[in-house]
Amino acid sequence: MVKIINIFFLFALKFNQFAISNYHTKIMAKLTSRKENYSQWYNELVVQANLAETSSVRGCMVIKPYGYAIWEKMQHQLDSMFKATGHVNAYFPLFIPKSFFSKEASHVEGFAKECAVVTHYRLKNDPDGKGVVVDENAKLEEELIVRPTSETIIWNTYKKWIHSYRDLPILCNQWANVVRWEMRTRLFLRTAEFLWQEGHTAHATAEEAREEAEKMINVYADFAENFLAIPVIKGVKSANERFAGALDTYTIEALMQDGKALQSGTSHFLGQNFAKAFDVTFTKKDGTSDYVWATSWGVSTRLMGALIMTHSDDNGLVLPPKLAPIQVVIVPIYKNDEQLSAITEKAMQVKQALEARGITVKYDDDDTQKPGWKFAEYELKGVPVRLAMGARDLENGTIEVARRDTLTKETVSFDNVDEYVEKLLDDIQKNLLQKAKDFRTAHTYKVDTYEEFKERVKNCDGFILAHWDGTTETEEKIKEETKATVRCIPFDAPDEEGTCIYSGKPSHKRALFAIAY
Amino acid sequence: MVKIINIFFLFALKFNQFAISNYHTKIMAKLTSRKENYSQWYNELVVQANLAETSSVRGCMVIKPYGYAIWEKMQHQLDSMFKATGHVNAYFPLFIPKSFFSKEASHVEGFAKECAVVTHYRLKNDPDGKGVVVDENAKLEEELIVRPTSETIIWNTYKKWIHSYRDLPILCNQWANVVRWEMRTRLFLRTAEFLWQEGHTAHATAEEAREEAEKMINVYADFAENFLAIPVIKGVKSANERFAGALDTYTIEALMQDGKALQSGTSHFLGQNFAKAFDVTFTKKDGTSDYVWATSWGVSTRLMGALIMTHSDDNGLVLPPKLAPIQVVIVPIYKNDEQLSAITEKAMQVKQALEARGITVKYDDDDTQKPGWKFAEYELKGVPVRLAMGARDLENGTIEVARRDTLTKETVSFDNVDEYVEKLLDDIQKNLLQKAKDFRTAHTYKVDTYEEFKERVKNCDGFILAHWDGTTETEEKIKEETKATVRCIPFDAPDEEGTCIYSGKPSHKRALFAIAY
Repeated sequence: MVKIINIFFLFALKFNQFAISNYHTKIMAKLTSRKENYSQWYNELVVQANLAETSSVRGCMVIKPYGYAIWEKMQHQLDSMFKATGHVNAYFPLFIPKSFFSKEASHVEGFAKECAVVTHYRLKNDPDGKGVVVDENAKLEEELIVRPTSETIIWNTYKKWIHSYRDLPILCNQWANVVRWEMRTRLFLRTAEFLWQEGHTAHATAEEAREEAEKMINVYADFAENFLAIPVIKGVKSANERFAGALDTYTIEALMQDGKALQSGTSHFLGQNFAKAFDVTFTKKDGTSDYVWATSWGVSTRLMGALIMTHSDDNGLVLPPKLAPIQVVIVPIYKNDEQLSAITEKAMQVKQALEARGITVKYDDDDTQKPGWKFAEYELKGVPVRLAMGARDLENGTIEVARRDTLTKETVSFDNVDEYVEKLLDDIQKNLLQKAKDFRTAHTYKVDTYEEFKERVKNCDGFILAHWDGTTETEEKIKEETKATVRCIPFDAPDEEGTCIYSGKPSHKRALFAIAY
Repeated sequence: MVKIINIFFLFALKFNQFAISNYHTKIMAKLTSRKENYSQWYNELVVQANLAETSSVRGCMVIKPYGYAIWEKMQHQLDSMFKATGHVNAYFPLFIPKSFFSKEASHVEGFAKECAVVTHYRLKNDPDGKGVVVDENAKLEEELIVRPTSETIIWNTYKKWIHSYRDLPILCNQWANVVRWEMRTRLFLRTAEFLWQEGHTAHATAEEAREEAEKMINVYADFAENFLAIPVIKGVKSANERFAGALDTYTIEALMQDGKALQSGTSHFLGQNFAKAFDVTFTKKDGTSDYVWATSWGVSTRLMGALIMTHSDDNGLVLPPKLAPIQVVIVPIYKNDEQLSAITEKAMQVKQALEARGITVKYDDDDTQKPGWKFAEYELKGVPVRLAMGARDLENGTIEVARRDTLTKETVSFDNVDEYVEKLLDDIQKNLLQKAKDFRTAHTYKVDTYEEFKERVKNCDGFILAHWDGTTETEEKIKEETKATVRCIPFDAPDEEGTCIYSGKPSHKRALFAIAY
């Protein structure tokens, strides 16, 4: 792909046919279709729609302005939902002393040890005069780990904050960057550095902590469905897939268009594990002392991957209106300055009327690009609604309205177009969710034999609901033989007697299986 | 102080007299006065007002929820000002390959080499069974530096984004954490890790880049005066104090209550230095090629220090209303439940009326604390306006209004108290700025002899305007002998013939000198 881009680029420079606009080399090379190669389609889309790109630092991405604008909208919405549920933000150190990781035994055992390790704190001029080298005299006594997650440093801090039941609950969230030294990385889905939020709460009772963990998985599900327009299955992770150090991990699982599952958010009931590891006790009302109960929960820039893979098509990105940085674009179609000026006057009326309704509008009168180029460009960028206005529209008092999700268009009366578009944005938001729900329904299979299971998995058909005996042994055998994993035991899975597809042992509920990202 | 807190804490637990509320051990130990020990006053205030605390990681701070809430308000305001001036946000990697630092010669020479260096990417279980150790097999080929600032990684990225004049300007900003391995740290003022924003822009001409750098120092000054209520002097740094790699550095300098200057924001005209270092050229309209022109600009959590030191007093924090997480607190004063319930009803009316005006209100009916304790607590936290309502107020239809900035109070009619308070918040915002301006005027001295200069500096009297011959040699001599530095040449310094206080050589403008943080 890199080579292709370079060739196109030279071509573009030479013939000045493909304009290069701000912040990116924008190439109208057609995307690989999803059918042809889903993975390549995704990679090309992320780059061509100017969402993100790889950097010179292995596994770290650059989130480009257009991608970051979508992430900002997610942050803003999530942050207000956290605050509405009583949480406050704080900030804890980027670095964690190495010894902290050893304090909670299952955390260090279970958590990947691929971390960025800081060992020195100074550079010096190379004695040979070639740039800088690490100053070996500036070696840290104890190595520092760039946080892969912050339970340890935060519980080390909470020890200072918590003494009495009056100090509880603590309901803190942090927006931060974290680093996990992944070997195989993909933009947004798996990167060495990523952005996320991590909530860390402390409670006086197990019940309250468990309620908090459940509350937050519900907040995530609400956000996924009503903002990302992604239907998710809420459930509890198997023992094997739990967060290292958790007693229970709740998850939201989404189905991508290629039939793979994407874990989109998790919330952990941590019991008293971290309180015990960092000796955080509190005095109860009755004067006795106990360890504090904990939860943690997080979503990350991975949600960008979920968003892209759920809705987008072979023409490019499809964005739900609630998260689109530009919700409506207006493109004038004109043959001369006189026409442009008349259209601009009308377009500005529409723009102002839409903005008065809180809608974000861009008027694109860039004279260096043809309307057809612009149409393709805003399709690629996933702008939900495109309005076009030409000389004939001026005469007829009409305007062309195109919706990105269905790629349909119609001509409507210029009057009340703002009201029309506002309703249309609502419709698009709902339609995207419904479409994703329908897709999921069509790709969820109740499977009762291991043969059928293997066939479904082989074709990557989607979600599979199957009986499982609940043992890690069976889970691992199935994973080994098919690569499918237990995504969760759905909260709403009905009680149903059955036998494990693998071991034949009794089972009381179906688990959700899939090939996962 | 730590010891005192511990003693108080045991005392508090035992007698249950001092309640411990969420997120902190709140102790009503009186602050050291500013007169007694300004530096200690600052340190105690930051901790006792729950703004921040030191962490277990050397030089890294924990920003506590109340402190973070203020920082969030700053971020929100600055972000909207950046967007209003055409900027967009993006995100670049935390890590920078070591070799990047050598590419811009003056950058690597001038920039402090105290950096966090990542050398390994994996931990492993200690063969001795004691926790984890660094896996020596997982050594990076090239060390990575945790960004102390991002010019290098960003210009390495811009090379991919910029080809033609059509790609310009690029107006990106990043909100991020950065690390500089400071040896002596103080909460907010100088920490190893801190939060900031860094703008990085690319332009087709020197003029445009210079205008951008000036525009952003003006945005900072506007923010400082109209939101932080801190008057600042805008000016240009001496060659010696320029950012490493810049052709010119603009600064805003604020005066703290102890007579020291605090550099509160900088904006750099970088010329073509980084474009040359990373080979970023563009094709001009006329078809010729040139290197791109650059700026960068940033403010950080250091502004929290400026805010605290400018306005606060011996009773605690004083916050300008525009940045106060709680703008108004209402405290009921009651003897029994019946009174409380009658007061609560009235208080809720006030709360709703204030909230309808966009004012943030807290009603504190916590039954475990006495009103006097609450008064002191909200003074410590810097809440701009405190309303109190007792049985007599109910009878008389009145409410007590206390303002934090002047520590005065008055009883006003209950009717229209919302309108009254809204106006009062405006007054407080203005008063804080005026007070700070008056303080600065009273502590700015025109000095014409080196003797007087030394005397003023010795007493840390404030800003000194003095003639200076403009040479680095003189600047360094003065710094060596007095510790005072050239803060800037103020933009508005009038042309004035004079002689350098040190060398006696001719000078055409006065420079601003001070002892600086």
